[in-house]
Amino acid sequence: MEELAKRLLNGDKRACARLISKLENNEPEAIQIIKELHKYTGKAHVIGITGPPGGGKSTLTDKLVKELRKKDKKLGVIAVDPTSPFTGGSILGDRIRMSDLSTDPGVFIRSMGTRGHLGGISKATQGAIKLLDIYGADYIFIETVGVGQSEIDIVKTTDTVVMVMVPGLGDDIQAIKAGVMEIADVFAVNKSDLDGASKTALEIEMMLDFNDNKEWRPPVIQVSSLKREGIDKLLNSIIEHKNEMEQRGELRARRERNAKLEVLNLVEEKLMNMVMDVTDKEYTLKQIAKDIVEKKLDPYTARDTIIEKITK
Amino acid sequence: MEELAKRLLNGDKRACARLISKLENNEPEAIQIIKELHKYTGKAHVIGITGPPGGGKSTLTDKLVKELRKKDKKLGVIAVDPTSPFTGGSILGDRIRMSDLSTDPGVFIRSMGTRGHLGGISKATQGAIKLLDIYGADYIFIETVGVGQSEIDIVKTTDTVVMVMVPGLGDDIQAIKAGVMEIADVFAVNKSDLDGASKTALEIEMMLDFNDNKEWRPPVIQVSSLKREGIDKLLNSIIEHKNEMEQRGELRARRERNAKLEVLNLVEEKLMNMVMDVTDKEYTLKQIAKDIVEKKLDPYTARDTIIEKITK
Repeated sequence: MEELAKRLLNGDKRACARLISKLENNEPEAIQIIKELHKYTGKAHVIGITGPPGGGKSTLTDKLVKELRKKDKKLGVIAVDPTSPFTGGSILGDRIRMSDLSTDPGVFIRSMGTRGHLGGISKATQGAIKLLDIYGADYIFIETVGVGQSEIDIVKTTDTVVMVMVPGLGDDIQAIKAGVMEIADVFAVNKSDLDGASKTALEIEMMLDFNDNKEWRPPVIQVSSLKREGIDKLLNSIIEHKNEMEQRGELRARRERNAKLEVLNLVEEKLMNMVMDVTDKEYTLKQIAKDIVEKKLDPYTARDTIIEKITK
Repeated sequence: MEELAKRLLNGDKRACARLISKLENNEPEAIQIIKELHKYTGKAHVIGITGPPGGGKSTLTDKLVKELRKKDKKLGVIAVDPTSPFTGGSILGDRIRMSDLSTDPGVFIRSMGTRGHLGGISKATQGAIKLLDIYGADYIFIETVGVGQSEIDIVKTTDTVVMVMVPGLGDDIQAIKAGVMEIADVFAVNKSDLDGASKTALEIEMMLDFNDNKEWRPPVIQVSSLKREGIDKLLNSIIEHKNEMEQRGELRARRERNAKLEVLNLVEEKLMNMVMDVTDKEYTLKQIAKDIVEKKLDPYTARDTIIEKITK
């Protein structure tokens, strides 16, 4: 273990990969290392890339990574793939992507599954961000599928959220988005070569006008990953967002809020593991469910019985 | 309290409304009544109506309710509205809907918010289903917005899930749906008067062909709420689904599984309330978060400290 920790701290890509796998398999070793090396975290700029499916987020991330490689930055990329709540498998399948980057020694790329149900960012992903931070990544990109929970979670895990929009996705999708627009720190209107890109950008600006009470107004940047236009401008906006937050003391506030949420998530996970342990023996969940359906027991009394077993 | 319980059991609409409000406000009285009257639950057929936004779910529910009223059935309708995770308010606003039904003494209609973040069905909604069941509803419709978590939760709360699809929502939305298609017991292709309805129905059938290992193959029913076509057929399919499940013993299995999940949810909620209580005093979450960002503490150690306080 000592060895693995040292290698991670020295920026060994394979050590990082192994530790992330250990995290995913819930091996205590990985957590032990994060515990010990926690003091080396906090240096990376963690960037969330989200937005509706079909918006070209992967390609855009690819381009941002390449732009940063020109500046010789060390990079981590985590692509969060939704896991089917029923089969447990990945819905999109393992995306084989950014293949020319995966051989670049300065870029660490990884696909990770979601937490149980559609979209939530898993604790393993939160841990992987820390490992990448310790590993020495200057920038860590977390790319989500932009459906449901992951869009909400992304803001709890990152310093800067980039919302990737595209022209022509239709009113329905845009309406879904309305509820999660608030999480964006920077808007990227991708595929700016398409008709309607300027209109989409304008609509976002108008929406921002309505909600213009924040100290940071999210810039709306038109980009084309295909034509490689606007990528540098987008990158500058992302970096500017972090700098500006830092100056206002907002970065620290945001990271404290995120740390709080992470601790609560970890507590919840562990407590529920304890619940599963207790209900695997003696009075099993199966029996409880049977008793409830047979009306010998109600769910609230069942709850109290279980909690008593844990907190006794 | 005695009085309110009795009135609920006698099918008093106002008592039911008051108790749901009490549930939403976390008043213990409502839970006490559910505990005591739990033996009167389990009679209603609980039906989830879900699918992408813009699919006409409300209007379709409206028509199904009217069809059932012809048979003099007693009905409950809960419209689950997403709550913004940031403002705490409803994203869609209180939908004023089915106004001609709301004066019908045989129909109980209620809008309810989601759990904290986008889409999850709240414990209050789960409790409201029980109250409506005790109240004497023959059928309870739970209509969700069909985004993210609520679509996953709906299958944990209902006997029959109706997935409402519409032609022409575009490939992107349909792709989002692929992951949650598995939860459908009955498909309704709404707006069958539109071009492409038959094509959409065919696509769903083809998808079902690929996944044809279940004992119940979800029927695909074309409906038009506007023209009132196919509503009776859809209703028959919904009722048939429950009957068929009952014969196979599957209804009981499903309800046991749902009871299990509900108990786990209730346990989680109460444990997290205990966590909040503990971290409100002494070593507060605020201080913990500060210490983590200042690297005096790591999240895993923080977790263990909190859990020790609860389970001591």
